[in-house]
Amino acid sequence: MKFLRFKNRENSLNNNQKIKTGYLDEDNKVVELKGDILDYFNRDIKTILDNILESHSLEDIEIQAPTDPSKIVCIGLNYKDHAKELNLDLSNSPVIFIKPSTTINKNDSVIIYPKMSKQVDYEGELAVVIGKETKQVSLEEADNYIFGYTIINDVTARDFTLSDGQWTRGKSCDGFAPIGPFIETELDPLNQKIITKVNGELKQNSNTSMMIFSPQEIISYISQTMTLNPGDIIATGTPPGVGEMKEDSIVEVTIENIGTLKNYLIKEE
Amino acid sequence: MKFLRFKNRENSLNNNQKIKTGYLDEDNKVVELKGDILDYFNRDIKTILDNILESHSLEDIEIQAPTDPSKIVCIGLNYKDHAKELNLDLSNSPVIFIKPSTTINKNDSVIIYPKMSKQVDYEGELAVVIGKETKQVSLEEADNYIFGYTIINDVTARDFTLSDGQWTRGKSCDGFAPIGPFIETELDPLNQKIITKVNGELKQNSNTSMMIFSPQEIISYISQTMTLNPGDIIATGTPPGVGEMKEDSIVEVTIENIGTLKNYLIKEE
Repeated sequence: MKFLRFKNRENSLNNNQKIKTGYLDEDNKVVELKGDILDYFNRDIKTILDNILESHSLEDIEIQAPTDPSKIVCIGLNYKDHAKELNLDLSNSPVIFIKPSTTINKNDSVIIYPKMSKQVDYEGELAVVIGKETKQVSLEEADNYIFGYTIINDVTARDFTLSDGQWTRGKSCDGFAPIGPFIETELDPLNQKIITKVNGELKQNSNTSMMIFSPQEIISYISQTMTLNPGDIIATGTPPGVGEMKEDSIVEVTIENIGTLKNYLIKEE
Repeated sequence: MKFLRFKNRENSLNNNQKIKTGYLDEDNKVVELKGDILDYFNRDIKTILDNILESHSLEDIEIQAPTDPSKIVCIGLNYKDHAKELNLDLSNSPVIFIKPSTTINKNDSVIIYPKMSKQVDYEGELAVVIGKETKQVSLEEADNYIFGYTIINDVTARDFTLSDGQWTRGKSCDGFAPIGPFIETELDPLNQKIITKVNGELKQNSNTSMMIFSPQEIISYISQTMTLNPGDIIATGTPPGVGEMKEDSIVEVTIENIGTLKNYLIKEE
């Protein structure tokens, strides 16, 4: 099932408009549901059907980020083909970094190219949405904490990460984490095509089967030291082909069976 | 003025007990105030006095972390004497990293020594509390966004930071950011003694006058790329003398004119 959060397009600039929850049905209609998206973690179909409100056409809504994560935990190098491209040994354990909540961005929205940066890169990635508090879970249990899967563009000011050594500043500019458009709750995370296009040109083209650490391994590992909250997002690393986006680019990350996350890079005024 | 957040000790384990706001008066009594601590950013004394509720003795309360930050932004090497000790050149710009909200801890409370780590270090630091949304502010404006100053122990699993290269995992274990006990709103941040003791033994002994970047410079710098939210905490870096804490240690960070932040390191069960 494809869950999403949205606002009515008509009135979307009104900050008082509550973010709504829904799912995408077989006819590509958005079926609105009562309550918050996290209320639907691990719910049976009857509960979902009992909470249906009205339907909307996709044209009448603006998709929002699928949750309000307290943090986005990201994994460095996690694709075998990417490691090969960089002539690096496969890691024994994931390297993690954090994007703060101020990076959260949504589908079909603008990424601001910061004045201070000279190189902004795309990194298309499969993202995991956490469904409930996750603390020291085993590999076997990890799947029980996953709400579903979505897409993230782990936008990176490459000049900052290179000059700082530490990745935080280059990963943490406002709006540098477009997430969405949907949370797919029924996905095999280890067998989906993942591609990134810039201005229609194919830049990344891999499959999540090339991941070194599975989402379940990553969640178990992170949770040994850091509690994950409901709605938190885990970015599982990017395949080969990472590169620069120029101002006024359109960037699209597509993952099979989830959808396409589309954004526009605009120079800061 | 010394603001704080607290619970009544009697009933402090009741998670439904609302966190209260107050200030410490000249007789070391805690004067309870209506509303949230952030309501008192930049308020005149009359407003504060108009909002007084009852008084409590320090023995009857449990001090809580002074805010609920969305993130803690930390600065690497920022003391001239520490740089000299390490034979490092002074940086041209601060290196930043983030501790997520799950690291927040409070005064007089336990820091859990994670099972996975073999070396946990203290790092006593002056912390800035942000009073309102801070985005691209100049050095001259930065002071207008500061609520006040408090103390943070930037607890670090040193073996994690060394093996990962990236500092995030070693800085982000649950409870690795004790903050408090008070927010002092009238402090010269560049002329205060800062000392750390472990089991009563002096380990760090410096003065905030040795900082390379002032709090105002740091806030202006971070805010160029990353919006700071009300209640966010900025850790301004640690003086020389960083080192290990063994299990069952008592660690105390004291900053002149703010107070002492005291914690207990306990092995994870």
